[in-house]
Amino acid sequence: MKATVLVRPKAGILDPQGQAVESSLRQLGFSVDGARVGRVVDLEVEATDAEQARAEIERMCEELLANPLIESYEIELDA
Amino acid sequence: MKATVLVRPKAGILDPQGQAVESSLRQLGFSVDGARVGRVVDLEVEATDAEQARAEIERMCEELLANPLIESYEIELDA
Repeated sequence: MKATVLVRPKAGILDPQGQAVESSLRQLGFSVDGARVGRVVDLEVEATDAEQARAEIERMCEELLANPLIESYEIELDA
Repeated sequence: MKATVLVRPKAGILDPQGQAVESSLRQLGFSVDGARVGRVVDLEVEATDAEQARAEIERMCEELLANPLIESYEIELDA
C-alpha cells in the first residue's frame, strides 16, 4: 500500500530552512509572507488494510520519521 | 493565499535519504518496500486570485524551490 507522510515543524518552532527560503524568495522579487519547510516521505508498506497501514505508519513516525517534540506529521493513504 | 508545494526526487533519480529511511525502517522491524524523501514547503503568497498564485509559485519552483533537472513539484492551493 502506498502512503505519503508530511512532516512539518510545529507552529512556534524555529525553522531556519523556512526563513532562508522566505528571504531568498524575497531577494528574487517574490511577494511572500512566510515559508516553512518540512519533509515529504513516500512509502510503500506491506499491510492488509488501511487501518493496519495507518497504525504501522504512525509507529514509523513516532520512532523514526518525525521528532514528535518539534514536528507534526500527517499521513495520507493512497486509495 | 496559503499554498503547499511538494518537491520530490524524480523517478529513476538516486535518493540516498530515501534509501537510508527504508533501511532504518527495516532495521526497526517494519515491512517497507520503498521510501522516497522530498521536501514540503508551506507558503503564504500575496496574490489576487488562484491562477496568479499558481503561476507565481511555479516560477518560485523553477527558480529556487526545486531543481527541475532531478526533482518534480506539485502545487496545492489552500481553498
